[in-house]
Amino acid sequence: MTRTPAPPPVRVLMATGQSRPEPWVRELAECLPQLEVLAWTPDDAVQADYLVCWGPPAGLFEAQHQLKAIFNLGAGVESLLAMPNLPAVPLIRLEDAGMAVQMAEYVCQAVIRFARQLDLYEADTRAGAWTLHKPISRALYPVGVMGLGVLGKRVAQAVAGFDYPVAGWARTPHQIDGVRCYAGADQFDDFLRATRVLVNVLPLTAGTENIMNADTLGKLQAQGHVINVARGAHLVDADLIALLDSGHLAGATLDVFRTEPLPPGHPFWQHPRITLTPHTSARTLRSTSLQQIADNILRMEAGQPVPGIVDRQRGY
Amino acid sequence: MTRTPAPPPVRVLMATGQSRPEPWVRELAECLPQLEVLAWTPDDAVQADYLVCWGPPAGLFEAQHQLKAIFNLGAGVESLLAMPNLPAVPLIRLEDAGMAVQMAEYVCQAVIRFARQLDLYEADTRAGAWTLHKPISRALYPVGVMGLGVLGKRVAQAVAGFDYPVAGWARTPHQIDGVRCYAGADQFDDFLRATRVLVNVLPLTAGTENIMNADTLGKLQAQGHVINVARGAHLVDADLIALLDSGHLAGATLDVFRTEPLPPGHPFWQHPRITLTPHTSARTLRSTSLQQIADNILRMEAGQPVPGIVDRQRGY
Repeated sequence: MTRTPAPPPVRVLMATGQSRPEPWVRELAECLPQLEVLAWTPDDAVQADYLVCWGPPAGLFEAQHQLKAIFNLGAGVESLLAMPNLPAVPLIRLEDAGMAVQMAEYVCQAVIRFARQLDLYEADTRAGAWTLHKPISRALYPVGVMGLGVLGKRVAQAVAGFDYPVAGWARTPHQIDGVRCYAGADQFDDFLRATRVLVNVLPLTAGTENIMNADTLGKLQAQGHVINVARGAHLVDADLIALLDSGHLAGATLDVFRTEPLPPGHPFWQHPRITLTPHTSARTLRSTSLQQIADNILRMEAGQPVPGIVDRQRGY
Repeated sequence: MTRTPAPPPVRVLMATGQSRPEPWVRELAECLPQLEVLAWTPDDAVQADYLVCWGPPAGLFEAQHQLKAIFNLGAGVESLLAMPNLPAVPLIRLEDAGMAVQMAEYVCQAVIRFARQLDLYEADTRAGAWTLHKPISRALYPVGVMGLGVLGKRVAQAVAGFDYPVAGWARTPHQIDGVRCYAGADQFDDFLRATRVLVNVLPLTAGTENIMNADTLGKLQAQGHVINVARGAHLVDADLIALLDSGHLAGATLDVFRTEPLPPGHPFWQHPRITLTPHTSARTLRSTSLQQIADNILRMEAGQPVPGIVDRQRGY
């Protein structure tokens, strides 16, 4: 009688870009007790079946010859797609994983703060002044959301829940309850002209880079507001500043920047009508994200389809 | 042939407390073209069928002998109920009338600002610091809403829409999707101990005055937050300050005060962990409110039941 040798274990390699990878590796290992889960190190020669990564180092892919898939620890994959030697295996990005609700509340907070003039009331009360300003008419604050994937849809619906008129725009047609949807380049101008508060939740691709510029932002309704929770490269920084300073735009709430951390001395830091946060609008939640990735690895091992596979042509 | 004399027109008298009553009178008159709508003046001897008032002068009721109903231009009626000579006719308060969504967004804004540490991020970025803080766990920010009428229900459901655990408490039992409801004095302690962010939307009655005091606020979870959008007399001011200064409470967002305008020198003005606004969380919207009142007058004239009649015993 001959014994079949045990197959080598399925191996998952993690390059998370975290300063302390151990809790990430430990938690994914707990989700996948039958698999071998390892942290990547620069001198690693180990061959992995799956890579889980965020901002992976340039040399990571060259030594890998048996990858079945690469998981991105985030929703945006533009950095991964730009890497040389990216293997021709499925790329899978996080879908929601607790990010949609975070983004929805961040955006709603910014919309409410703007439409309800909370900065004005805060300045008043800080000066000891009890002053009532004219109450708002929601009809005057139409909100337009660019990007209607899992994140954009939840953002749009959350804003609509507060009875603001909400429009949505995406490359392809969508139907979302309570949201007037526009699609494609042909309808982009109509969408912009119908919008006072512009929210960006687009993926970053060659087609969306610099999409918020003097021309497009100039088409927003007067006294508009820009909320960017997607990528800094969607926005032409100087054009935003010029439109704020000319008075066409009333304010901006920015969570993402062309260079992160935002460099010292950048004019966004001290601009009186820009509120900024350090790329925190939708944080990757460890447990939720790793559970989603573990579930998808098990689906692939079982030969089942997985959600979130990136279309490289389209860029997301 | 004898002619029946035309009946006198049904007459509506408005004492809105506005510095400019004309637009209010004009707009209600447009809603009720068959009726006579007049602004009250101090030397008025005119007999009215309906009164529409907000903060009415003391002498208003004495001269009126044929009133069918009194409409309150707001949701809270405690001031009206405290007036001497209040005629024994139905009192009708505004229900929602565009206030619920305003209150929901005001409260959500305060909850999000607290749970997402936006004040901390604002202080960081104002100082030019790009610093990421540990992301939140929603489970650690249970929100409790006191008062589950039209306003409280919408507030509770809006907060629950952002996936925070939400509890509700009212005098009588309620069932609201996504909200764990507590009822009556017996369950008040359980409600408080399950709550970190306390939102007050109660009517002001003898039973709810001073309901937020050292004892009750002391039962909230550590590092709690108080959001008061109902009435200032619900809160014992000195107890709030003491609990903020002891560190048990992390912050408070106050829209209403025992004396309004909040007197100069009151410690709330300059307290570093109190955010305050001048009773603006839910403004009476002229068109929506007058349309609701006009509809109800027509219902009464037609002998139909009207919503929003105040139970004087209960106080709201």
